[in-house]
Amino acid sequence: MKTITEDSPKKSLTNVTVGEDVKIFNFVNAYGCSIGDRTKVGAFVEIQKGAEVGKDCKISSHTFICEGVKIGDGVFIGHNVSFINDMFPKAINEEGSMQTDEDWELVKTEIKDHASIGTSVTILGGLTIGFNALIGAGSVVTKNIPDNAVAAGNPAKIIRFLK
Amino acid sequence: MKTITEDSPKKSLTNVTVGEDVKIFNFVNAYGCSIGDRTKVGAFVEIQKGAEVGKDCKISSHTFICEGVKIGDGVFIGHNVSFINDMFPKAINEEGSMQTDEDWELVKTEIKDHASIGTSVTILGGLTIGFNALIGAGSVVTKNIPDNAVAAGNPAKIIRFLK
Amino acid sequence: MKTITEDSPKKSLTNVTVGEDVKIFNFVNAYGCSIGDRTKVGAFVEIQKGAEVGKDCKISSHTFICEGVKIGDGVFIGHNVSFINDMFPKAINEEGSMQTDEDWELVKTEIKDHASIGTSVTILGGLTIGFNALIGAGSVVTKNIPDNAVAAGNPAKIIRFLK
Repeated sequence: MKTITEDSPKKSLTNVTVGEDVKIFNFVNAYGCSIGDRTKVGAFVEIQKGAEVGKDCKISSHTFICEGVKIGDGVFIGHNVSFINDMFPKAINEEGSMQTDEDWELVKTEIKDHASIGTSVTILGGLTIGFNALIGAGSVVTKNIPDNAVAAGNPAKIIRFLK
Repeated sequence: MKTITEDSPKKSLTNVTVGEDVKIFNFVNAYGCSIGDRTKVGAFVEIQKGAEVGKDCKISSHTFICEGVKIGDGVFIGHNVSFINDMFPKAINEEGSMQTDEDWELVKTEIKDHASIGTSVTILGGLTIGFNALIGAGSVVTKNIPDNAVAAGNPAKIIRFLK
Repeated sequence: MKTITEDSPKKSLTNVTVGEDVKIFNFVNAYGCSIGDRTKVGAFVEIQKGAEVGKDCKISSHTFICEGVKIGDGVFIGHNVSFINDMFPKAINEEGSMQTDEDWELVKTEIKDHASIGTSVTILGGLTIGFNALIGAGSVVTKNIPDNAVAAGNPAKIIRFLK
């Protein structure tokens, strides 16, 4: 692993730790995160500080990965997927001034190895998506999803299990 | 307030009226809009002409704010939020040629002070989201939401009230 | 039609076949696709190889159009719309290495002339959206939609017919 910073017209990468053969496409904004060997990151993706993406993953275009998200190995993240790390987001604190890091609690999310998250899925904060689970496109995930489960809908419900 | 135009590799800002200490991140496309003091605008955001964003707001990445939208002060707009200003969108008019501004009616949307709009929310045109209201992630808002209401789902329904 | 390649700070266009008076806005990533006369393509749009977009279309910001998608003439595609071409997406194949083109099956989607796809709609793979159909904002389309139908919801259901 090495840590790179690249400020070119189509990339803004600041202190991104990358493994071997990582491929980062155009118009990507990433900072303070790590990305494992051979993982591909599509256009218009943002990955925030502290997020961890494993090896052999595909992170598709227009996806947002926030602080507090840990993605395992061999995970597919579809296009336009959004993660969440704050269950009660506010712009301002109780005194009416802009929130600082002391004004909110980070909740963590984990996507286990080999899972697939469909396009346009939204995953609430504090959840775990199990090994080899499949989340259908357009779902809003509000509960933990067990290993090998197929879930879909808003809110996402388990439809069946793989194997 | 001052009006700025900046055409740099990672920003396209044309006639954007900004207050003090406004922070605009990478890959932002904004034109003819206004943004109040201390408001932060994330990556991959588009803000169209005539849209008004208040002060002390947080506009998160991948969000689209269209003409006809007025956002109050201290408002949180999550990632991947989309607004709408045309209830019957068409590419072409009845003669079969591309629509012009005379072929459709702009409907306006207002987000009142201190509201929070969750990640991946879609807000139909012509609506008002009340003071301090909270819209859950992944919701599709089809009706007005009153002050202090918490609403979620597709279509969004009121779950409870804050305070 | 002519084929263009442009690698400028705000555009990455590679082998894009365009008709006359096509307008492509800032921060667009497109390759190996075709775009018909007078069609407009908004900011933060990605269009993949093999995708076909007709003439007199409006492709709004933040939209993703994948390989296997054919869009007719006079079609409105809203903001943040996502298409899908793989019903069982995985990052890795059964041997545990990154998938190649031989490890998955492309499914095709067609949007017929004069249709309108609302903002934040997700359209599953292998579907046809009929002539002049209207898909409501925030819908997840899981079945074919007939000509002139208005459909909405997750999953999208037919509400009524136009004319």
